Amino acid sequence: MNLKEMGRKASEVKLILQKLTESERNQALLKAADRLAERKKEILTANEKDMEAAREHNMKQGLQDRLRLSEDRIEAMAEGLRQIAALPDYIGEVMEELERPNGMKIAKVRVPVGVIGIIYEARPNVTADAFGLCFKTGNAVILKGGSDALESNKAIVKVIREALEECKVWGDVLQLITDTDRKVTVEFMKLKEYVDLLIPRGSAGLIRSVVENSTIPVIETGTGNCHVYVDKDADPEMAAKIVCNAKTQRIGVCNACESLVVHRDIREVFLPILKDRLDSHKVELRGDEGVREILPDCVPATEEDYGMEYLDYILSLKTVDTVEEAIAHINRYNTKHSECIVTKNAETAERFLNEVDAACVYWNVSTRFTDGFEFGFGAEIGISTQKIHARGPMGLKELTSYKYLIRGNGQVRQS
Amino acid sequence: MNLKEMGRKASEVKLILQKLTESERNQALLKAADRLAERKKEILTANEKDMEAAREHNMKQGLQDRLRLSEDRIEAMAEGLRQIAALPDYIGEVMEELERPNGMKIAKVRVPVGVIGIIYEARPNVTADAFGLCFKTGNAVILKGGSDALESNKAIVKVIREALEECKVWGDVLQLITDTDRKVTVEFMKLKEYVDLLIPRGSAGLIRSVVENSTIPVIETGTGNCHVYVDKDADPEMAAKIVCNAKTQRIGVCNACESLVVHRDIREVFLPILKDRLDSHKVELRGDEGVREILPDCVPATEEDYGMEYLDYILSLKTVDTVEEAIAHINRYNTKHSECIVTKNAETAERFLNEVDAACVYWNVSTRFTDGFEFGFGAEIGISTQKIHARGPMGLKELTSYKYLIRGNGQVRQS
Repeated sequence: MNLKEMGRKASEVKLILQKLTESERNQALLKAADRLAERKKEILTANEKDMEAAREHNMKQGLQDRLRLSEDRIEAMAEGLRQIAALPDYIGEVMEELERPNGMKIAKVRVPVGVIGIIYEARPNVTADAFGLCFKTGNAVILKGGSDALESNKAIVKVIREALEECKVWGDVLQLITDTDRKVTVEFMKLKEYVDLLIPRGSAGLIRSVVENSTIPVIETGTGNCHVYVDKDADPEMAAKIVCNAKTQRIGVCNACESLVVHRDIREVFLPILKDRLDSHKVELRGDEGVREILPDCVPATEEDYGMEYLDYILSLKTVDTVEEAIAHINRYNTKHSECIVTKNAETAERFLNEVDAACVYWNVSTRFTDGFEFGFGAEIGISTQKIHARGPMGLKELTSYKYLIRGNGQVRQS
Repeated sequence: MNLKEMGRKASEVKLILQKLTESERNQALLKAADRLAERKKEILTANEKDMEAAREHNMKQGLQDRLRLSEDRIEAMAEGLRQIAALPDYIGEVMEELERPNGMKIAKVRVPVGVIGIIYEARPNVTADAFGLCFKTGNAVILKGGSDALESNKAIVKVIREALEECKVWGDVLQLITDTDRKVTVEFMKLKEYVDLLIPRGSAGLIRSVVENSTIPVIETGTGNCHVYVDKDADPEMAAKIVCNAKTQRIGVCNACESLVVHRDIREVFLPILKDRLDSHKVELRGDEGVREILPDCVPATEEDYGMEYLDYILSLKTVDTVEEAIAHINRYNTKHSECIVTKNAETAERFLNEVDAACVYWNVSTRFTDGFEFGFGAEIGISTQKIHARGPMGLKELTSYKYLIRGNGQVRQS
């Protein structure tokens, strides 16, 4: 099907979607969950075709692992939809109400965004998840997943659409672009007439390509060059525990720590404790002179190291003389994602919290908590690293917009 | 100065701006207002150069009128800045607070967006206004005004920057791009490394060009193909009053009514009353068959008429048989700006309010009220017609973002 036709359908269906009640939307989500769980075999057969092609093309093991489905993973998809169904409904919420001197009453009401496009890589679990979050918030969705997961995605979308239609919900609330030509993806990014918001999920390269090509408003997600700053007034044990957690608890994620900034006066006490902990995870350290004075085995850090999101067992280290210098270093190299200070000094901490420019700034807490679930949102479509619309973890509310409803009795404007 | 250098300066200065207190920001705004009022002559001399060139190039009278400054207009600019200074400060506001089961406390705090770029046409009053709104909300601003107003803009910016520096505020919080090469404007739209948000203010063509070229997040403003739907249950006198106000009270604005949708059953009573009123304003009517049966002199409307934002004394008219048909017509042709239903039937009204997709939907109120001042925001940078970040009138709050501050005592993530 051509893209314009898909856009037109999504646009039509978004207006019908508004009329579904909360309970109708939740029932459809639960039905989709049940059908995914029941039709695992069909999905696994399709996934096997993708896996075969992946093996033929010598896809990297890590990527193959993301592409692979199993009974458990499909069960987890279904469970994800059930959890989304159980979350509160925000659509229709009156966010503000005011009455003007001329007697007109203005209500600011939460509404769906409309049509959301999601562009992602070969992770078939995103298919069900993105659908669930968008549908829960009354949005129609058009998905463009990685070509390597096409068969898996087609199977998942087929099962969900059929489940929706069982509930008398138009299947076109969920559409999948099956043309794998890159030109089609770029054309999708320009489908402004029909698509209200585009969210890329995936590598820095994918996100950059969307930002550069899209004429649709984009929310940038996910790149995280996150720092922990260990202040002179830090508790060294707490600092080591936080850095070790933020660096090693899960390395391939955007909220992992990539760089340590350390105050000169605490180096001697702190760095050996840290090294002990990190050695057990085989973390490679790349530091400046100030660090290498204490840890002579440490690899010298280059300028590039400070700008790197390693997503690996590597940590860059930088020495500073003051908290100002720490803040300046972080504001220069960070991706505005998540930053942390470890200190017992409240004044220093508040300064850091206020002056570091990032979606999430932590005091004595691991950066790994930047996550919609950990924040209690119950869901997450991504972590926004831009400043408009949404910043940080994006849950259901961040997939909504608002409109003003103005009720009166014949008011006209005089000047 | 080259653009990157300007971006770098704005980026540096945005971090310093955060440290200014509310009172420091307001004092600087008041000082800028005073200096604008005192240095009128200098600004008028510069404006005269622009006006001379405009006359030489036979600029249209309407555009010349927008370009022209006078003592009163400069006084109004100064007064605008004083009004902005008197508005509440939203920066630092704690929007939400929550504590998680692990004891970490999350605060969602309102912060400036950072660096805002404004691209506009030859209206020098926008220069002071855009600066005032952005500075009040703690943002650095880079302006690119229309080339025809360059001398006026340079003079205004010079006066404001000098006033800021008298208050020990870095002048670079306000920068003006003086290179009039179109290539530079396009380069500005891609200055993503430094600029957090771009707001175009002006014609549909200008806005389209920004949307197509920008890699910076854009807020689209201003195009308004606004409708009034007169339902069969309308009070014909009220309907005529509202349509006439929305059409004629000011014709060149985005919240003016461009199209009337009328229920078949009320045509006979309503259209003659409306025609009487509109005739006194010499409004040309372009209607379909249903309208022409009642008003035989009415020009036949074409398909294009329904998509037109006339910004002129012209009104298109469309007959419908039901409110559903009215809603479908409006959702097809509107620009998602402002729409109105006139009816005494509450059920019909609520349906219209819910199902019409627009920033502002009115029941028995003129569309002309879509305005930051009329909504009580005390200021306005534009009317957003997109769905993300801000929708409808954008006041000070819409020029802010937020960040999460997370305070704890050593929390690390286990899974």
